Formats: sequence, structure tokens, C-alpha cells
Amino acid sequence: MDGERLRRQIAFIVEIDKLKGILRRTRVTVGGRRENDAEHSWHLALMAMLLAEYVEGAGVDVLRSVEMVLVHDLVEIYAGDTYCYDEEAAAGKVERETKAADRIFVLLPPDQAREMRTLWDEFEQGETPEARFANALDRLQPLLQNYHTGGRSWREHGVKSERVFERTRPVAESAPALWEYARDLIADAVEKGFLG
Amino acid sequence: MDGERLRRQIAFIVEIDKLKGILRRTRVTVGGRRENDAEHSWHLALMAMLLAEYVEGAGVDVLRSVEMVLVHDLVEIYAGDTYCYDEEAAAGKVERETKAADRIFVLLPPDQAREMRTLWDEFEQGETPEARFANALDRLQPLLQNYHTGGRSWREHGVKSERVFERTRPVAESAPALWEYARDLIADAVEKGFLG
Repeated sequence: MDGERLRRQIAFIVEIDKLKGILRRTRVTVGGRRENDAEHSWHLALMAMLLAEYVEGAGVDVLRSVEMVLVHDLVEIYAGDTYCYDEEAAAGKVERETKAADRIFVLLPPDQAREMRTLWDEFEQGETPEARFANALDRLQPLLQNYHTGGRSWREHGVKSERVFERTRPVAESAPALWEYARDLIADAVEKGFLG
Repeated sequence: MDGERLRRQIAFIVEIDKLKGILRRTRVTVGGRRENDAEHSWHLALMAMLLAEYVEGAGVDVLRSVEMVLVHDLVEIYAGDTYCYDEEAAAGKVERETKAADRIFVLLPPDQAREMRTLWDEFEQGETPEARFANALDRLQPLLQNYHTGGRSWREHGVKSERVFERTRPVAESAPALWEYARDLIADAVEKGFLG
């Protein structure tokens, strides 16, 4: 047994516990506290398992999308969460997150560091069907959270329906039926006064 | 598009948000608050991706183990978390969780309800290599959490090293190298005074 290899794997596993402390702007439906990146990633993984049938075209390798969503936010341990409706913060996001990626994955043995980095790069580039699906889920899930918490996070940050529409629109490229659902939900949120 | 099918899938996805409110006895390493089942499940899924090489024998279908750990605690939304060192609570656990499984998975369309229930049953029975690996991770992860939070949860509940040893021992059946690591960690926790 290669003790050094396992030692590095465990060190990474312990380090990523910090993802549980990275808070998003969205809220959970019970108690209304802010959601953290780890539980958000878990939610996306289950959504990938359940909604893959809606991906247009030849379908997706579900495992790859699942792996991608499990890994996609790890860089935020060092880069922090960037609120998607904050344009100033968005400016330095790519640079911050790339630097963070350079730091976190190298904790692993080289072969696994490469695999994880490849998954993250693929998610960020959003060009494969698996990455587009993973990205679509990452847009859809906060919409569900916001809708089912009465739009609290939208109202707290003065977010308008046009921006939510625009932010969620890429779902259509991966899964048109999910986009139809999302569009109706946004309209309903406006009607209910959750969203301006 | 079958609107009723998607409506049921989304209803399930919204319902399982409640897993984020089910608290375990273990603590997270940043801030020391109690860990919830959703973030715990995320952590196990990443461990499955990274540690599958240690499974003895012909190896495992990693996707299946990943899916199993993502789903394994959903029943606790209705059954609550049962502390593994609480013998009284353990008495009714199987019955409580089976009742909960009967309630939660049926929110999904029938085919997916069956798939999810099959995953959960397989995890609970612990007979396949994938289920044994998933169970091993479910024993190893709290050990890591407890060790890296100075044994706080062990000390709070007066847990002795013999019981942690016994609880973690099944790791050996799936992945002997991980059990060796775990055993050394338990010994070190005793030496450091984290564990009596």
C-alpha cells in the first residue's frame, strides 16, 4: 500500500470539508438559512440522476454530469461564492477561481488532480452535453430554492425578473422541457409578488 | 412532454431539500456546527470518486456507489437521524426508516420510485461490493470529522474507543487499506485525548 498516496487523498477529503462553510445567497426551504455549497452540490447531483431524460439530443453520460456538479464549486473554498447578480464581483471571478483551482486540486495525487481539474475545466467551458446539463441544473436549482422560499433572496437583493429570465435561459440549450418549466415558474413568481 | 411526470420529479426535488435540515451528531471542521445529512452525503460521494481504488476484489461500479450515498439518508427526512452510539434509538430504526422509505420514494414517477428504492434497499442490505463500499465510506467519514474536530462529538456523548473501533471495523470488509488507516487514526485519537 502506498501510504503517501492515501495520505494525500485524505488530506484533500478533509480540506474540502470547508465547502460546507461557503454560503450562497439562496435559502433552504426549512428554517430559511442560507444554503452552503456542499448541500447545493448534493442537490444538483440528485437532480442530475432524476432529470437526465430531458437532455436534448443523444443524451448524456449521467455519471460525468454527477461528478461535475459534485466538484464544480470546490474552487469557492478559496475564491468565495460570487453572487450571480453582482456585476462588480463577476469581473474578477474567472481569475479568482482559476487561481483557486491551481491550489486545490494539486493536494491530490497527480493522476487524480488532473482528473478533477479536467472535470472542473469541462464544467466551466460548458461545451460538452454533460457540462451543459450540469450548468443547466446549476441555473435551475436556485430558481427552485428562491421560488419555494417566497423569493426572499431575490427581494433582499432587488433582483428583477428579466435578470432571472436571462440567468436561467441557458437551460434551454440543454433541456428545453426544463426551460419551459422554469419560464412558467418565473412568470408565476412575478404574479405571486416574489419577484419584481 | 409529460407535464405530470416532470411535476412529480420537481415535487420530489423540492421535498428532499429538507435533508439539509436533518442534523447529525458529527461536527464540521469550520465553525464546529453540527453537520447535516445533505452535506454529509455530498462528502461521501466525493470520497467514493476518490477512494474506489482501495476496494478489494474485482472493484466496484463507482457510479452505483455514488448514487447510493447520495440517496442513503433521504429516509431520515421522515425518520430523523439515529445516533449510531444510541442503543435505545437503534431499536426502532429499521422500522422507522422502512416506513419513511415507503413514503418518500413514491413521490416520484413509478419507474424512478422503484430505482431509488432499489438503491436504498441495496445500501441497507450491504451485500453487493458497491453497497459495502458505500457503507464503509459512511463509517469512515464521521471518523475523519470527529478526529479533525478534536473528538468533540465523541466527548459530548461519552463514546469510548472500543465502540468507535467496532463501528468502523466493517470498513475492513470492503477496503482493508482504508481500515488500516482508520485503525491508526482511532489509536492516535486515543493518544491525543480526543477519545476515551
